[in-house]
Amino acid sequence: MLEQADPREWIGRELEQVETPALLVDLDALEHNLALMAGFFAGRAAGLRPHAKTHKCPEIARRQLALGAVGITCAKLGEAEVLAASGVGDILIANQVVDAAKLQRLAALAGRVHLTVAVDDAANVAALGEAARQCGATIHVLVEVDIGMGRCGVAPGRPALALAQQVAATAGLAFAGLMGYEGHLVLTRDPQERKTKVEAALELLLDTKRLIEEWGLPVGIVSGGGTGTYDVTGSFPGVTEVQAGSYVFMDTTYREIRPEFQLSLFLLATVISRVDPSRVIIDAGHKVLTSEFGAPQVLGVPGAGSLRLSEEHGRIPLAEPEQVSLRPGQRVRILPSHCCTTTNLHDHLLAVRKGVVEDVWPIAARGRSQ
Amino acid sequence: MLEQADPREWIGRELEQVETPALLVDLDALEHNLALMAGFFAGRAAGLRPHAKTHKCPEIARRQLALGAVGITCAKLGEAEVLAASGVGDILIANQVVDAAKLQRLAALAGRVHLTVAVDDAANVAALGEAARQCGATIHVLVEVDIGMGRCGVAPGRPALALAQQVAATAGLAFAGLMGYEGHLVLTRDPQERKTKVEAALELLLDTKRLIEEWGLPVGIVSGGGTGTYDVTGSFPGVTEVQAGSYVFMDTTYREIRPEFQLSLFLLATVISRVDPSRVIIDAGHKVLTSEFGAPQVLGVPGAGSLRLSEEHGRIPLAEPEQVSLRPGQRVRILPSHCCTTTNLHDHLLAVRKGVVEDVWPIAARGRSQ
Repeated sequence: MLEQADPREWIGRELEQVETPALLVDLDALEHNLALMAGFFAGRAAGLRPHAKTHKCPEIARRQLALGAVGITCAKLGEAEVLAASGVGDILIANQVVDAAKLQRLAALAGRVHLTVAVDDAANVAALGEAARQCGATIHVLVEVDIGMGRCGVAPGRPALALAQQVAATAGLAFAGLMGYEGHLVLTRDPQERKTKVEAALELLLDTKRLIEEWGLPVGIVSGGGTGTYDVTGSFPGVTEVQAGSYVFMDTTYREIRPEFQLSLFLLATVISRVDPSRVIIDAGHKVLTSEFGAPQVLGVPGAGSLRLSEEHGRIPLAEPEQVSLRPGQRVRILPSHCCTTTNLHDHLLAVRKGVVEDVWPIAARGRSQ
Repeated sequence: MLEQADPREWIGRELEQVETPALLVDLDALEHNLALMAGFFAGRAAGLRPHAKTHKCPEIARRQLALGAVGITCAKLGEAEVLAASGVGDILIANQVVDAAKLQRLAALAGRVHLTVAVDDAANVAALGEAARQCGATIHVLVEVDIGMGRCGVAPGRPALALAQQVAATAGLAFAGLMGYEGHLVLTRDPQERKTKVEAALELLLDTKRLIEEWGLPVGIVSGGGTGTYDVTGSFPGVTEVQAGSYVFMDTTYREIRPEFQLSLFLLATVISRVDPSRVIIDAGHKVLTSEFGAPQVLGVPGAGSLRLSEEHGRIPLAEPEQVSLRPGQRVRILPSHCCTTTNLHDHLLAVRKGVVEDVWPIAARGRSQ
């Protein structure tokens, strides 16, 4: 009796024979991206700590570490737990973890792996210390500094110094350094403008490091950066770690910023209706593709207009219907507009090489937002 | 050793003690909505076949059936498999199912439950019949008619007749009737304009029914409608089934259209940062809330501006910072802008009554887009 599709059955098959909508990673492109980024950091003062929020996939984290990454970055505690269970031994949660139940989980995790977390609040520092002591663990702490993004983080300079001193004085915690994310600049189009602005933002972070060290506290880690800024941030004197994530997959958004990486992430869809020749309807909507960065892009369909999503349908308007022979059952490849949120909609990645499914990788931390 | 959060541990707890981001359903509001919709259809010629795409949750489907629903509607085969496994015995997949592997699954499912599927393509009808015969099952079929939405469906009149005749002549298939979805009208704001336009669209469907019956084929089912149009469609002569879904939860979008239903779905978030008094940062971003219908709404925070989402953060700008005492660790309730896609991001619904978690319901068909 046939039951729900098990994607592992598709290993060895060509893409015409897998069920859709399916999220694919092209292994040649992925390996190109992993090698290119690892090569940039090889022999450099700063290390690469790839952000797993993009892939949420232990198989990819393992490859990043094998190529020299100094550890893995996560956005949420739940992601960190999944990656720790898969064998990752050094994790930064680049975020604040605040409520009581989560602090217990965090301290327990710190007993199993080298765990670092960001802080920007004095009460949170006190609670973190208490959780660590109760658990007999050491939690490593980065003080997050707001270097212009206007999201989390204390102001550069004295406020960061005060928090660093509190962390250093709290039993159970180890002051590890500073984190600042130039997220407001990662998608700045012009490379020269991006470089100038990123360097100005990082200067705030490094000035704060110098201030804290003047007060006698060593600042071991200075962490920042993303795919849009990895080269500038990764070569800025004093930065020790870069948290790039999207370079593994890329998408319509990052393609414009970082042409040196290849597109590796695709959504494979199937045509389900072609009644009116001027449009093709596919089996992929908002539940398998995200659109906060704009419409995903239809590939390989001549004259395809902007993809219009409803929940489980995608509508492709055609400028030249007679040029497009697509019928129900045929496949269409879609390029996501935001790789990180698209991955979070799927349970599996089909790892594909030259059109054949080579492996199926669980997106094991999908939905781990707690 | 504490591991990943298990939400079933939160049963009996107040909301201050659950981990976030968490998706909540308020049971009093849900029960109001279920009863109101069931009451509308009680004793009416048309029946309610609620659309499970909204909740993807067997616990809610069970309640809908207990209140008199004639069956359940699904958008995808994978959803139908999950609901069948939970005991739902009569399912409409209001969509085209086309590729070979899926047709085998569909036919297998038709051997276990009363299964109906939509078609708009002659080759698909032939393939469906072959799959049904191979499996020794009967697949019930609705011919989908495009009544103005411009998505799937054949044109009203002769094209629908031809497809209905083909279905009726295909061994393994049973011609069950017609489906037409007035999805282009469900969010029309003005009730009178909505009514007039919906009735004009349904007239196309009923004209087609009459044509097919003139040719000697009985049209048992005429299916359509949604939460925005349930009253008009549900009382239109000849319509036999209405596929409303969103009424169970509601959201910022449907609230404007259907004030008789209560808001029952909320995202509970936690403040993770409040460095700058003019903004509150919560632990909820695009990975737990969708925004294709606009920004979700922050509830209970005086002077809160439009919620700005990044991947795992939400930024709430405050017009009067001194009126808002929120500190890290405190909770904020968010009203989704689109209930159906938001539910699809979560694995569990916390079923809450008067602020206490009464049960935890798996969103068992989450991600079942295949």
